[in-house]
Amino acid sequence: MPKIDFWYDFASTYSYLAAMRAEPLAAVAGVTLMWRPFLLGPIFKAHGMDTSPFNIYPVKGRYSERDLERLAKRQGLPKFHLPVPFPANSLLASRAALALSDEARPTFSRAVYLAEFSEGRDISDRGTIGDLLSKLGHDAEAVLTKTGDASIKDRLRAETEEAGRQGIFGAPNFVTEDGEHFWGNDRFEQALDWANGHRGG
Amino acid sequence: MPKIDFWYDFASTYSYLAAMRAEPLAAVAGVTLMWRPFLLGPIFKAHGMDTSPFNIYPVKGRYSERDLERLAKRQGLPKFHLPVPFPANSLLASRAALALSDEARPTFSRAVYLAEFSEGRDISDRGTIGDLLSKLGHDAEAVLTKTGDASIKDRLRAETEEAGRQGIFGAPNFVTEDGEHFWGNDRFEQALDWANGHRGG
Repeated sequence: MPKIDFWYDFASTYSYLAAMRAEPLAAVAGVTLMWRPFLLGPIFKAHGMDTSPFNIYPVKGRYSERDLERLAKRQGLPKFHLPVPFPANSLLASRAALALSDEARPTFSRAVYLAEFSEGRDISDRGTIGDLLSKLGHDAEAVLTKTGDASIKDRLRAETEEAGRQGIFGAPNFVTEDGEHFWGNDRFEQALDWANGHRGG
Repeated sequence: MPKIDFWYDFASTYSYLAAMRAEPLAAVAGVTLMWRPFLLGPIFKAHGMDTSPFNIYPVKGRYSERDLERLAKRQGLPKFHLPVPFPANSLLASRAALALSDEARPTFSRAVYLAEFSEGRDISDRGTIGDLLSKLGHDAEAVLTKTGDASIKDRLRAETEEAGRQGIFGAPNFVTEDGEHFWGNDRFEQALDWANGHRGG
């Protein structure tokens, strides 16, 4: 079964849309998704940006907020809200996602995204993450403790470095096993086609 | 019949893809496209950028070139090439497009785009534009002379100012009669739906 690496940042708006729709489409296409959370912050910094492009170009930010509202509606998601402040600090959520098993990560990730972009909850808060973990049947205290372990911190750092090494500059980014990159929620279907050997034309 | 303003810059890669596929889809959707060439350069400058974002972020530029190659192939277009230098100077082509009638503008615009992005021709060159005009049955000398008229120069300036006033920050941009903006080739279908009263959900 072909695999696609799904690189996402919990602060990323379009990663939210991708995360909410990706699994059923991947299943139908016969493709396994590897959920790989990372931090865009260090990558934006390496490109000379100290915050989200939404904030650097406000006219583009306002457009994108409207775009996201419309797309969320089309996807049947709850009303879209940008969290305040934006972008959210995604460090804790990313570490918690990596502390979980590969099997548990997608469901937890979708819960984080929904809390952030439809309920306006603060995903940098231990109470929020603990609550989401508990509701999903995890031992919240145990997972939160793990987020402080050097092994988890190192793994997130290594994943972020790996994303940079692969030339990832935004999220979501879908990477096929032969190293083809597809950037953006809009490119997910094309990534699935590519993974299945349909290369367009 | 609902109308959509199709704002495009001849230097814009994704405007090329949109221009090559837009008319048949608009016809099927029962929507009239108003082809409105403008210059992105002054708008980028107003956002503090003195060239294309492709050049400012080379890793993103390289990705986008690959993305465009793949999308051109999927659309059945000839092999995609970025012109050298990139971005092309689109002043002359834009003035020539405005010097033509509304009816003649789409066909001429597609010819300019194909020359630029599949044949690597220099669209800032009077010989290139004259050749394209002649092949389409226009009086090339007359149109080229018109590109020097104050009325045409003023009109392009006014269109570019109007784009900025409407909050356009990139191309292609599709604007419906009720003022909804859809940025990017990827959003064209959604703009058609919107123009026909289908607002998602």
